[in-house]
Amino acid sequence: MAENSGQRGGQHFGDRLAAAVQATGAPLCVGLDPHLERLPKPLRARYEGLQGAARRVQAALAVQDFDELVLCAVAGVAAAVKPQVAFYEALGGPGVTALERCCARARELGLLVVADAKRGDIASTAAAYATALIEPQGPLGADAVTLSPWMGMDVIDPFLGACREHGRGLFVLVRTTNPGSALLQRHGQPEAALLVADALHQLGAELVGQSGTSSIGAVVGAFAADEARALRARMPQAWFLVPGVGAQGGGVAQALAGRRADGLGSLVVSARGILYPPAGQQDADPADAIHTRARALAADLAQELGRS
Amino acid sequence: MAENSGQRGGQHFGDRLAAAVQATGAPLCVGLDPHLERLPKPLRARYEGLQGAARRVQAALAVQDFDELVLCAVAGVAAAVKPQVAFYEALGGPGVTALERCCARARELGLLVVADAKRGDIASTAAAYATALIEPQGPLGADAVTLSPWMGMDVIDPFLGACREHGRGLFVLVRTTNPGSALLQRHGQPEAALLVADALHQLGAELVGQSGTSSIGAVVGAFAADEARALRARMPQAWFLVPGVGAQGGGVAQALAGRRADGLGSLVVSARGILYPPAGQQDADPADAIHTRARALAADLAQELGRS
Repeated sequence: MAENSGQRGGQHFGDRLAAAVQATGAPLCVGLDPHLERLPKPLRARYEGLQGAARRVQAALAVQDFDELVLCAVAGVAAAVKPQVAFYEALGGPGVTALERCCARARELGLLVVADAKRGDIASTAAAYATALIEPQGPLGADAVTLSPWMGMDVIDPFLGACREHGRGLFVLVRTTNPGSALLQRHGQPEAALLVADALHQLGAELVGQSGTSSIGAVVGAFAADEARALRARMPQAWFLVPGVGAQGGGVAQALAGRRADGLGSLVVSARGILYPPAGQQDADPADAIHTRARALAADLAQELGRS
Repeated sequence: MAENSGQRGGQHFGDRLAAAVQATGAPLCVGLDPHLERLPKPLRARYEGLQGAARRVQAALAVQDFDELVLCAVAGVAAAVKPQVAFYEALGGPGVTALERCCARARELGLLVVADAKRGDIASTAAAYATALIEPQGPLGADAVTLSPWMGMDVIDPFLGACREHGRGLFVLVRTTNPGSALLQRHGQPEAALLVADALHQLGAELVGQSGTSSIGAVVGAFAADEARALRARMPQAWFLVPGVGAQGGGVAQALAGRRADGLGSLVVSARGILYPPAGQQDADPADAIHTRARALAADLAQELGRS
């Protein structure tokens, strides 16, 4: 099949991400993890002391204001944002409404949106998740979504239509680096993560754009630098979404270990390290501080890329 | 550690499920999969022809009315209901608000609620999902949730507090029976599904109640009858949540293949076979028809149990 088949011009996810990384000068994705206990103090005051549904409604409004602050700070610095849907779902219906608003606002500001949902279901249920998360007529309409492959590649099929027809993208959990991750991901010979990588490479071949990158990507944790290089050899066209930098302790060079020779292919996520001041401190002006932290990390990423 | 440690009397999930199965006479769990194109005609009329957010708001209200009809029909017949959260999330914030209402109403009617979410994340994100889905102060407060183990047993830890302190339960995807499921679940020697089973058996040991069943259960598809027997040997105390009966083509005896000698341990799910008329037909009175289908399946299940 021809490259970029079924894509409208400029609508290919891999190409859009490549363009965003080139425009900002750094492959930075800012994670949006709105921890209620860590929001700036004036926002916390709106829900602290409340309980139940009343608390959730007020907290969802505060999260919406926090997102606005973050999105304005990082637009032009980051290529993408990655809302972690769990934090919004913890606030029920009002939280998911805030997430809808977050995705719409990010788009307005020119930021790509990766919905971090790690969904993994099949058939009509997976199709409902595709509607929920990335399809243009759905409530979020995110540019990409994270998926979990435990049920097999059936998990991915119902999302491919949105990739082909609407320029959406996927990041499938290949190798995470949490303490218990090896149990299944490194099980067997070949290791299970490699089976997933090979299956994704095959699925992604029809969705390679003009940038030479595919819309079918992989999540590869920042602590797995050696593995990232091995996975790159198996998935030369995939974007890697790389969490674990900053507050989670991973270094920039390590996070970029799996990138391609052309400098594309790795999208590095930092969330808490950008959103929140170091433990025990408080930002005098959160909007300004968030902007400053995002800029510093983007500069580091750009410098590391320049060195290669 | 003593059996039932950390549990308040009557609050243990495995015990509550055993009591519900004994009270209704059949291990039936009705899946709530509100497919918008299959709801009864008068409900569909409310959103057909609408687009975007207006459609989602009206559809969420129609789903709420459909759920009310189903929940009233199956109370006293089914032990539990299993809302598939994807269908609610496809409707955004209003859909999740409808799901909150569904869970509250099921509780009022004495039905246990298994939130079918197949979540699989770690650390503070998994804790946010636990709040979203099963913790009593959260928006849904479901009795149990389905989880996916690809990231390892780290996925489960943040849910254990709710199991210990609030009588909540888990069903972890061990063996599904969709066409692509073997790729990872049967990979390696021993097969990966068995690794998960052994890890769950170990985790569940501290959460065994007076019924001899644990609050840590497993999802085991109805087509895997031979495997279900092998998994039962490894997980003697686990409840198996068994999808695949009815519309998905699995038979009742097959679905009960993994049950224990005392008749407990298998909770059989039927969704479309109960909720909707056969393709091309329409229920004259949906409330009555749903009730009749649920009763017929419950009678079949009870009869199969009686035969053993």
